Amino acid sequence: MLTAPPLARYRREVDQYLRSLISAQDPPLLYRMARYHLGWEDVDGGSLEAEGKGLRPCLCLLTCEALGGARETALPAAAAIELVHNFSLVHDDIQDRDAERHHRPAVWSVWGDAQAINAGDALLAMAHLALLRLADAGVAAATVVEAARVLDARTLEMVEGQTMDLEFERRLDVTLPEYMWMIERKTGALFDGALHLGALVAGGEDALSRQLGASGRALGTAFQIRDDVLGIWGDASKTGKPAEDIRRRKKSLPVVYALNEAPRLARENLKATYERSDLSESDVSAVLGVLDATGARDHCITVAGSYKDRALEIVDALPLAADAKRELSETAAFLLERDF
Amino acid sequence: MLTAPPLARYRREVDQYLRSLISAQDPPLLYRMARYHLGWEDVDGGSLEAEGKGLRPCLCLLTCEALGGARETALPAAAAIELVHNFSLVHDDIQDRDAERHHRPAVWSVWGDAQAINAGDALLAMAHLALLRLADAGVAAATVVEAARVLDARTLEMVEGQTMDLEFERRLDVTLPEYMWMIERKTGALFDGALHLGALVAGGEDALSRQLGASGRALGTAFQIRDDVLGIWGDASKTGKPAEDIRRRKKSLPVVYALNEAPRLARENLKATYERSDLSESDVSAVLGVLDATGARDHCITVAGSYKDRALEIVDALPLAADAKRELSETAAFLLERDF
Repeated sequence: MLTAPPLARYRREVDQYLRSLISAQDPPLLYRMARYHLGWEDVDGGSLEAEGKGLRPCLCLLTCEALGGARETALPAAAAIELVHNFSLVHDDIQDRDAERHHRPAVWSVWGDAQAINAGDALLAMAHLALLRLADAGVAAATVVEAARVLDARTLEMVEGQTMDLEFERRLDVTLPEYMWMIERKTGALFDGALHLGALVAGGEDALSRQLGASGRALGTAFQIRDDVLGIWGDASKTGKPAEDIRRRKKSLPVVYALNEAPRLARENLKATYERSDLSESDVSAVLGVLDATGARDHCITVAGSYKDRALEIVDALPLAADAKRELSETAAFLLERDF
Repeated sequence: MLTAPPLARYRREVDQYLRSLISAQDPPLLYRMARYHLGWEDVDGGSLEAEGKGLRPCLCLLTCEALGGARETALPAAAAIELVHNFSLVHDDIQDRDAERHHRPAVWSVWGDAQAINAGDALLAMAHLALLRLADAGVAAATVVEAARVLDARTLEMVEGQTMDLEFERRLDVTLPEYMWMIERKTGALFDGALHLGALVAGGEDALSRQLGASGRALGTAFQIRDDVLGIWGDASKTGKPAEDIRRRKKSLPVVYALNEAPRLARENLKATYERSDLSESDVSAVLGVLDATGARDHCITVAGSYKDRALEIVDALPLAADAKRELSETAAFLLERDF
């Protein structure tokens, strides 16, 4: 099993690289919003300690290394992936009216919707500018063009997934295939891009790089389902209140499953509850009861497991050195086995 | 003076090319919003006649041709410029709470803010995907990378300008240099990109292409000032109500000029009026009176003229064939001389 330290180091490297890219420029407000959202400044512009950046860029660096590439060559791609992820978070928070992210006020709740839209737009433009620095890192121009195409295609898929997710909020008849379609894009697409880009930068052939992307997509989808489970049954000390996602009437996989699979009466009660604007404690308990009776948690764990298996099978079938396969598989296992 | 027909033909070509890129895909809503905004469908999804696309992509094609390139090679760049412009319009309408655009409901007023944010985000991702098709049109990969960098840098500048413009709404002490800084980015940057990309695609050297970009920026800035003037003194049959921008308390250049240059008492009255939430007819007349007394309209026409001159001087100093210079200059003149 992969231990945490290398990931922590990669996270810091991505953070440092990103900080070198995004300096304070004009107008100050735009760059303050970006630096605030990325965790480098507080609301008043005071500096904050490095926290390290997320999983997606680390997977990009790891894939590049596993294929024999130099990690630092992939930094522009890793940074781009992280910036696209953050662009989507800034806009998602506006769309979902989430006033907090990681226990800090969301950008929109500090500076308003209009400026938060600009902050997200700027992060997306910065993501592209970061990616194009691959050319300065010695990556062949044709590969940079292909990398840009991958980044943009995955970004568009992510927006497609987000559009669908918002549509689901107004519906109680979401099917399980529709839900899987949505998270394969909303979350899976960028994990796909992370591995795909890491492989391209390492000089991997197109077919191999695409396969690694597909593995990343399966991994990302498993990761999202794990998140869905933790949002209901996770350790409340880490995720906030117990059953937080029920309280917020989120239609995550356990609920979609129960809305499709629970016995008729339980299903009708669940729908009626989810149509209310505020849920009482007894509503929350009732929903949890329906999920338990339907076996929603077990279903989710099974589905996540099958996506994880798919991710590992894809890697296993690739013409890669045993070391590379082991490194990628151990990372996948590490990401998914915690907290379940 | 350049006659309208070639521009009309270029507009149709860009429209056709864009239609070939953006087909109906999943989820339908996302692509419906895009096709609606681009003027191809009505709210119910019914088809609309081709209208032709805007000035920016035409300038891109014209520049490419003026430098001896084939117009169709530049179509991916022209399409990308037009899509970036449209991404910004969709988001601007949300930010400005403009319920209409070209006498049609804005995307947000049909589908809500959250989905309109997605529509804009998707148009930006599509812009990048369009640009990368330059590689399929036979443009060298290194040039495509440079073109992508130009598109992203100009997009980021445009967002910087929009951030500043929104900040100005809350201020009555905007200086003239601040205002010029803003429109050189909000409007000028994408005109810069249009000419810069057209030149790059035609095989123009970096320095020459950048200079043409600078000329485009000056032209775009002049164009914006012309718009500012027409928004107050334009033909109401074309622009809506007379003095529409005053009614909406827009801080366009004539008003910024008067806020800086009117005699103290008139200035204080103007500020007081602009602090109200609704302007009466007599308020509008009073504002117009201050602008007239201060010579705001003449000032704007002079400033627009000096930007136009700068645009023409840059072109004139370039090592280009006399024919190319004449074509570019005549187009600039055509764009700016109508309606003033």
